[in-house]
Amino acid sequence: MVDSPAFVKDATCIVGIGQTEFAKALEPSEKQLALTAIKAALDDAGINPSEVNGLSSYTMENVEEFDIARNLGLGDVTWFSQVGYGGGAGCGVVGNAAMAVATGQCDVAVAWRSRKRGARTSRPWAGVGQRVSGHPQWSRPFGLLRPVDEVAMLARRAMHEYGWTRDHLANVALAFRAHANRNPSAQMYGKEMTRQDYTDARWISEPLCLFDNCLETDGASAVVIVRSDRARHCPQPPVSIHAFAQSINRQHQVMTNYFGDDPLEGPAWACARRLWSLADVGPGDVDVAQIYDAFSPLVPLSLQGYGFCAKGEGGPFTDDGALEWPNGRLPTNTSGGGMSEAYVHGFNLITEGARQIRGQAINQVEGAEVCLVTSGEGVPTGALLLTAAR
Amino acid sequence: MVDSPAFVKDATCIVGIGQTEFAKALEPSEKQLALTAIKAALDDAGINPSEVNGLSSYTMENVEEFDIARNLGLGDVTWFSQVGYGGGAGCGVVGNAAMAVATGQCDVAVAWRSRKRGARTSRPWAGVGQRVSGHPQWSRPFGLLRPVDEVAMLARRAMHEYGWTRDHLANVALAFRAHANRNPSAQMYGKEMTRQDYTDARWISEPLCLFDNCLETDGASAVVIVRSDRARHCPQPPVSIHAFAQSINRQHQVMTNYFGDDPLEGPAWACARRLWSLADVGPGDVDVAQIYDAFSPLVPLSLQGYGFCAKGEGGPFTDDGALEWPNGRLPTNTSGGGMSEAYVHGFNLITEGARQIRGQAINQVEGAEVCLVTSGEGVPTGALLLTAAR
Repeated sequence: MVDSPAFVKDATCIVGIGQTEFAKALEPSEKQLALTAIKAALDDAGINPSEVNGLSSYTMENVEEFDIARNLGLGDVTWFSQVGYGGGAGCGVVGNAAMAVATGQCDVAVAWRSRKRGARTSRPWAGVGQRVSGHPQWSRPFGLLRPVDEVAMLARRAMHEYGWTRDHLANVALAFRAHANRNPSAQMYGKEMTRQDYTDARWISEPLCLFDNCLETDGASAVVIVRSDRARHCPQPPVSIHAFAQSINRQHQVMTNYFGDDPLEGPAWACARRLWSLADVGPGDVDVAQIYDAFSPLVPLSLQGYGFCAKGEGGPFTDDGALEWPNGRLPTNTSGGGMSEAYVHGFNLITEGARQIRGQAINQVEGAEVCLVTSGEGVPTGALLLTAAR
Repeated sequence: MVDSPAFVKDATCIVGIGQTEFAKALEPSEKQLALTAIKAALDDAGINPSEVNGLSSYTMENVEEFDIARNLGLGDVTWFSQVGYGGGAGCGVVGNAAMAVATGQCDVAVAWRSRKRGARTSRPWAGVGQRVSGHPQWSRPFGLLRPVDEVAMLARRAMHEYGWTRDHLANVALAFRAHANRNPSAQMYGKEMTRQDYTDARWISEPLCLFDNCLETDGASAVVIVRSDRARHCPQPPVSIHAFAQSINRQHQVMTNYFGDDPLEGPAWACARRLWSLADVGPGDVDVAQIYDAFSPLVPLSLQGYGFCAKGEGGPFTDDGALEWPNGRLPTNTSGGGMSEAYVHGFNLITEGARQIRGQAINQVEGAEVCLVTSGEGVPTGALLLTAAR
């Protein structure tokens, strides 16, 4: 019988992380990329593929679990599940794996995302000439064809309601770009950007310009999860999965949030309430953050959703280099994130979060013990709290 | 920290079950069917939709979670996941919901399957004129177009290896049909079948005839899951989720199992090993079984996989009315199952399992305290042990 309302807390650790090269176009198939990233994570953990018996992935994966299992030479898998909604999935995918390991449904779980730009699932607007059904029927006929068009509406509303400016969005883009400039794995490694570059960039969907958008990336990332007692015997510093939560807030409408009382109060808010209720720490304890950034406005919206500032203050929170390493109040997306390292549907935010807690990041926040990782705001989402294992 | 390797055990109960009408063609949309079944399950549980904060479903659902949530008036959902592989999913879907409730990630979870025959996902062979990729590339070019063609290969092999006969398959079909004949919800209610009818039926894919196949059904089923302490205060007799397991066995190939050492040793075997290791009971304690029956041969294959008899004995096990209610050794698919009640990707097996433990089934096994429910053998699968809550 259950006694604790927060059973997953610290029961498991991330003991391996892996990734492929990140680039706009890579030769290997999605399957090869997935296998490469997972194998790298297992090698990092010192665990043989035959020990893996839990598989956690995105519903958008084009390669099915059994194909991953057979090609990696896994043992008998005894737990598997998937989470939907693309960029909203990552933290739930890892959290569900933690839950399955914690409860003994499996012993070694891997979670991953593998993605190629050419994939049908990565270009939802490619189907716009088709008959529109499901939730897009409420936005496509009005010209909101791409995710960026929908997020532009939210951004415009935040500017109107809160007085946010393009300078706030530039703060986000510039901070993440600077982090990527020092990260050899990042697509924007060494490619510097100035505020003038940002201001001069072409519109993608006004008020969002080119640099308010994430990259287009081929690549894969993966993590390995085991119980905390085993993690102590693994080669890398264990990264405790302190808590996780997911959220579809009431009356949610994917991306546009038309039906909510406040369209700017997205799934992050409900996710944050559950997350902090399951945790021993609060927003003030977070040393470093990895905030889902398919589009720059999602960052200040998430910052207020997760309680780093009052409602409406997410924009101004980014001033004075708050998100920058090493001197910001909350160094954020320290690998460059989706906007400047790679866009792997947010999974590279999770591996970077783990690196920070290990003390192995390129832009390492000194003494980082608590890292918040979030998945996409504006869609059904999730969040993870990673902490130094004690 | 985790102490028990079987944490989900008896931590949660099914407290509500619901379903729509089952028929070959129903007017309402899949969404309406899903909403109807879930609302019926919540009414049965005496729980308001606004309390639901966990959603567990099949990846094959055409209606997304957020759409279900908004249309039912759910509260803020804090956990959701999906399981793939159609008929292989059901028990994993329910098990994952149990895990999420047990660990405090959500408080009231609903799990469901809604299906219309016309759905693209229910007719995988409809795409056979397209370019073949993924795992079907290993079977489609050789004429194995439909799932029944692949299962026919397994059936033929079992006949060759074990000496099973069409009479064994008829035992399965006739037992389930007789159960359905007494069940007003069943598509085969009152429609009797003789062994001669079975023998005379046309081939679908030799050695499988019409009556070796499940029905084609429009309909939906749902269950509601809460923690066991709360379940005691719900109106219906609580049905404990004693254990669950899932499985993708090593070197698994969906349906055809080409790569395994023994193609007849499907995912059921690995699933059974995990399931019994997590449980306080064994095959000998099972009072009533609900065995996934998209095709009749899956039943004897599952019976041996889950340890009700030795390998090779699954066919003969069905003799002497073993699967029949009320006098069989193991009354199985007591509502009629997928072959004679309805084919809802196996989810109606779960609701019938719960009814048996409640003591409310049409073909009620007297004093039933332990029910095994399985999802599809031959594909990534799962199983549930439902027991009377103590």
